[in-house]
Amino acid sequence: MVRKLQVAVSGLGRMGARHAKHFLEKTPRAELVAACDPDPAAREWAQQHLAPYGTKIYEDFDEMLKHPGLDAVVVAGITTEHAPQTIRAIQANKHVLCEKPLSTDIATCEAVVEAAKKAPHLKVLCGFSRRFDQSYRTAFEQSDSGAIGRPTILRSQTCDKYRDDDYFVQYAAHSGGVFVDATIHDIDLALWFFGADSIVKSVSAVGVNARYPAMAQHQDVDNGVGVVEFWGGRIAYFYASRMMAAGQHDVTEIIGTHGKLTVNANAANDLVEHHEANGIRREIAQTYYDRFGPAFVTESNEFTECVLDDTKLPFKLQGAVSAIKIGAALQKAVRTGKKIEYNEIGEEIVEHKARL
Amino acid sequence: MVRKLQVAVSGLGRMGARHAKHFLEKTPRAELVAACDPDPAAREWAQQHLAPYGTKIYEDFDEMLKHPGLDAVVVAGITTEHAPQTIRAIQANKHVLCEKPLSTDIATCEAVVEAAKKAPHLKVLCGFSRRFDQSYRTAFEQSDSGAIGRPTILRSQTCDKYRDDDYFVQYAAHSGGVFVDATIHDIDLALWFFGADSIVKSVSAVGVNARYPAMAQHQDVDNGVGVVEFWGGRIAYFYASRMMAAGQHDVTEIIGTHGKLTVNANAANDLVEHHEANGIRREIAQTYYDRFGPAFVTESNEFTECVLDDTKLPFKLQGAVSAIKIGAALQKAVRTGKKIEYNEIGEEIVEHKARL
Amino acid sequence: MVRKLQVAVSGLGRMGARHAKHFLEKTPRAELVAACDPDPAAREWAQQHLAPYGTKIYEDFDEMLKHPGLDAVVVAGITTEHAPQTIRAIQANKHVLCEKPLSTDIATCEAVVEAAKKAPHLKVLCGFSRRFDQSYRTAFEQSDSGAIGRPTILRSQTCDKYRDDDYFVQYAAHSGGVFVDATIHDIDLALWFFGADSIVKSVSAVGVNARYPAMAQHQDVDNGVGVVEFWGGRIAYFYASRMMAAGQHDVTEIIGTHGKLTVNANAANDLVEHHEANGIRREIAQTYYDRFGPAFVTESNEFTECVLDDTKLPFKLQGAVSAIKIGAALQKAVRTGKKIEYNEIGEEIVEHKARL
Amino acid sequence: MVRKLQVAVSGLGRMGARHAKHFLEKTPRAELVAACDPDPAAREWAQQHLAPYGTKIYEDFDEMLKHPGLDAVVVAGITTEHAPQTIRAIQANKHVLCEKPLSTDIATCEAVVEAAKKAPHLKVLCGFSRRFDQSYRTAFEQSDSGAIGRPTILRSQTCDKYRDDDYFVQYAAHSGGVFVDATIHDIDLALWFFGADSIVKSVSAVGVNARYPAMAQHQDVDNGVGVVEFWGGRIAYFYASRMMAAGQHDVTEIIGTHGKLTVNANAANDLVEHHEANGIRREIAQTYYDRFGPAFVTESNEFTECVLDDTKLPFKLQGAVSAIKIGAALQKAVRTGKKIEYNEIGEEIVEHKARL
Repeated sequence: MVRKLQVAVSGLGRMGARHAKHFLEKTPRAELVAACDPDPAAREWAQQHLAPYGTKIYEDFDEMLKHPGLDAVVVAGITTEHAPQTIRAIQANKHVLCEKPLSTDIATCEAVVEAAKKAPHLKVLCGFSRRFDQSYRTAFEQSDSGAIGRPTILRSQTCDKYRDDDYFVQYAAHSGGVFVDATIHDIDLALWFFGADSIVKSVSAVGVNARYPAMAQHQDVDNGVGVVEFWGGRIAYFYASRMMAAGQHDVTEIIGTHGKLTVNANAANDLVEHHEANGIRREIAQTYYDRFGPAFVTESNEFTECVLDDTKLPFKLQGAVSAIKIGAALQKAVRTGKKIEYNEIGEEIVEHKARL
Repeated sequence: MVRKLQVAVSGLGRMGARHAKHFLEKTPRAELVAACDPDPAAREWAQQHLAPYGTKIYEDFDEMLKHPGLDAVVVAGITTEHAPQTIRAIQANKHVLCEKPLSTDIATCEAVVEAAKKAPHLKVLCGFSRRFDQSYRTAFEQSDSGAIGRPTILRSQTCDKYRDDDYFVQYAAHSGGVFVDATIHDIDLALWFFGADSIVKSVSAVGVNARYPAMAQHQDVDNGVGVVEFWGGRIAYFYASRMMAAGQHDVTEIIGTHGKLTVNANAANDLVEHHEANGIRREIAQTYYDRFGPAFVTESNEFTECVLDDTKLPFKLQGAVSAIKIGAALQKAVRTGKKIEYNEIGEEIVEHKARL
Repeated sequence: MVRKLQVAVSGLGRMGARHAKHFLEKTPRAELVAACDPDPAAREWAQQHLAPYGTKIYEDFDEMLKHPGLDAVVVAGITTEHAPQTIRAIQANKHVLCEKPLSTDIATCEAVVEAAKKAPHLKVLCGFSRRFDQSYRTAFEQSDSGAIGRPTILRSQTCDKYRDDDYFVQYAAHSGGVFVDATIHDIDLALWFFGADSIVKSVSAVGVNARYPAMAQHQDVDNGVGVVEFWGGRIAYFYASRMMAAGQHDVTEIIGTHGKLTVNANAANDLVEHHEANGIRREIAQTYYDRFGPAFVTESNEFTECVLDDTKLPFKLQGAVSAIKIGAALQKAVRTGKKIEYNEIGEEIVEHKARL
Repeated sequence: MVRKLQVAVSGLGRMGARHAKHFLEKTPRAELVAACDPDPAAREWAQQHLAPYGTKIYEDFDEMLKHPGLDAVVVAGITTEHAPQTIRAIQANKHVLCEKPLSTDIATCEAVVEAAKKAPHLKVLCGFSRRFDQSYRTAFEQSDSGAIGRPTILRSQTCDKYRDDDYFVQYAAHSGGVFVDATIHDIDLALWFFGADSIVKSVSAVGVNARYPAMAQHQDVDNGVGVVEFWGGRIAYFYASRMMAAGQHDVTEIIGTHGKLTVNANAANDLVEHHEANGIRREIAQTYYDRFGPAFVTESNEFTECVLDDTKLPFKLQGAVSAIKIGAALQKAVRTGKKIEYNEIGEEIVEHKARL
């Protein structure tokens, strides 16, 4: 019998539970052997939905790391635990698939990268789901083939459906801000299509609080527009929002010197159109998972494959740090109202105020 | 000063009034010198809207024909007057643009064609508005250029928005039936894309009365599906309806051996999309005129041009007869439930019932 | 540990191999314990791709039926074996998921239904993939909820991408004809949306051979248009083609008295648009499996669920017979050129020719 | 007979010739009585195309102003003449429709507004074609009705099709830059949807020269992204490009607190789709006039109507100055790389550099 990857999932909240199910049910080369969560309710869920299929449920992450034969860990709990758990898993000689972001703090992100560098035989992946989405992959293949010439301008938006509660306000307390939480995906796309080594020239951002004024207390905005200029003649511009009416509306345009590719410009959740008295209506994805669910499954499978076959991960962990740096700069720009500039080796240019 | 075509319009009902305005306002090489309608209310409208710009208003068609210097007549009154007025205008040596249909009666149609043949110096055009629509023209140019190989299958529908009154039922009393009244446009498209000389091999049709059961008293249906087979390996299939929810929904597909062209498959009335809580909505044309208004203006201008410059009309009057024959056959097929077959020279094959 | 459904797959050709993989990799509640194929090459493939995961490979179907603990069989080999294997599996007390069609012969289909009736504790499902497609399900839910009033007209097409070889000609020798092979899906949709008990009133069809004249030798057509009238005021009309340029193009419209639903009217394979010098281009599914792949996986999972939980199958086996009857009637209609009529209890009305 | 507006057109270049034709042929309540151009070739064209219909052709603008009975002038010559001619026409007591921009110089724009203020009985309109476009009007009506809540974010792009010559480079010498020349339309939309009294809070912009490096000599860019923040919590962000592959691609999104409207998000030039071996293709407008031709005709007619009926113009001349100010600020921002900030009464905040 073929050996399957022995995987554990840490954190069984919304995303963690999904990761657990993906590895349990939709990743044929992996076995979900363990799962942990400090929350009794989450463990209760796991006892019902995972344990009957052979998954052992732990309360404690470090106990779980000692599960016999464990190969890999999915780190999917609260954001503040992403980095520490990833580092401890690496130290315990486990491969890691860590939910984004590694951390909302740059130094912490860098510490993870450092830890991973010391264990080059381990696969450590930070999950940027769009990299696994079929449409983005088709677009990248086209772009990479030269079909649109040199990718020059990238427009990308990550926009959530409005919620009639205070979820987004609560969330803003710990998310790092909308550019760090949501736009991070768009930034990652820019680094993908423009190249991981792209060096930022300037960052600017503006924002408003149109539906959630309380968000201001967390120095966050519910609608933000950010512009990132790269050395070498490239521009990425972003829009993030928490107030879309129709649903989760994530769109990307990659504009090259000789053509353009769009992803989801003509959004639709399925192939149905409703002809009604006031026109023709189509529905769009309601949630991030509606839109990118299959990408997460591809992620599980490809991570498994990379570990089992010892092949290269589809992208480098370092990229997660680059993205977080840009996200944090956008967040700073929206907070201060200042444009941030960088020299050609990527160092921030600090204007020394004249002193008398 | 350049001489302009001196035009008169007969019939100032809904369509006639539009023709009058098109010639008055949107046909620079023509002058609307006269208009007539037996109905006092219509003449009242004309006194207000046409007369101030120099149009003389007549009660009587034959009087109007004597208008000094008159070059051409638009026949746009009630259907039963189309043929007689066209014939009298021809006899009075006027060019004629006649609204479709020439008549719902085939022999009457043929009489018009006969009259026109005797006056070959006159331009006599039966208005099939889609022939003047920019999208259909683009499709025809593509098809004619060979881009889709040999046009083989044509699907076309003319579908009206549902009306919450008895208009369609009343209308059915005199329209000749839905295949003669509405599908006639789709039939004309088949004759355009397949060639005016296409010979019918068989005609079949089915229909229902789903919203207007009273239509049955006029032996008509509010939804009909018809299939026309042509000798030489071509098929046209049609759908007509009086109960569309969203609006006027006219769609055509021309399927060739090497490609396909669609017109209005992805219907929209303008370039606006409405993002609302239940999805993305677009509106479509509400009426036939919403959809084909600009085509009628092109028709006025091209008719004027053909007369003034003595150039060939874009299509032959004979086609109007061919179309009406097929429409009438479809109507007969839906009424009798029988498939009608034709030999290779287009004669109906009558199955002689065995007699004792 | 939870007990999983012990499944075997018979026939490891293109579709069978996919079914095997679906049960092996994407059906968490099932285990693929056995597979068989008389063809050594297919078994060789299975040794490589299935056996390492614990699937036992058989040469002989009846031997496989004896596999210890076997619960259910997927019958996916050549069409002529569908019925006999399904019947033998039933007799061996196995649940069956049989690829469509049960048979191209109506009596044979009925024999399968008879066999299934005698074993009411067994789940016997004939796979109509569109019933498991998310978009069709959304459309059906809408229709079923009354959103479009009474479904009255159904237009549906199953159209394959043109192939530059003689595959379709070869295939026509055994497929039962394009209406039995391809349109069968559209017919099934009509029976779904109009109700399984819908009684046919008339069937007519026309067709041409535009790209594959050799198909005529099998009394088949490469483009066919069929119309099915149902008692109670409903019409379904169909188009099947083997010569689409752009790809597999399957479209359905369900037109109700108060609204319309379309599935794939605005076809696209993914969310990418390519802006190029001659316009904006999108790609569509190339094959049936491109379009309906996920539906097959849903099918595997729901079949498994119905067996394990002893719940009702999503639709009845009898429907497969009704569909094949209509498909065969369409095929007869296209061959003879005659419209076929039925009385209100569904018996064909045979016009007795007068005899002297 | 009804009195028609006596109109003259100054400047018979590409746009001027179109204006002349619109007034001659498509503006029923106006008469094109005169036209002028200093260029003999343009006058030659006018002799052929306008004179035969009664238009008198002048060489000199001031001579033309004396044309007996002249009511109104269309100023459509070179940009540097827009302001002086408009002012002279006002002084000669003529109504004026002036092509955008009034001037690329703000003070000059303001001089025009001053001149117009002194003659409040005259209609002076600066033509922003999108204000007359049916789709933008539908969007505005929706927005104005409150359908999307409070308009908060506006994204708009004006993007030209790439030209394989040096037209855009030459043009950049006098256009005032891409934000003044092209984005001006998008800025005007922001002022329309957000309100003419919106006060700018900050302006920032970045740009590249991706296809026309020579444009740098005119301190212009061939791709620019600009962001305008307004006091009161509103943001407009813009993209302008000279290198679109598929055609003129102008798109606008108006994002309100409760919904969104898009104009041309799903661009198409007509209702045709081409099904080809590599997918489904649609074409988009190739030029600005392809896209907005009908809007220019509406403009002619509404200007005529406002003058004849002495009704209010659809928008104020002052708006043209506000738009040019923002355009010039964006152009300055892209040139200097600096973000420009304004206080709540719209005065630029100049950071005084500390001096020793």
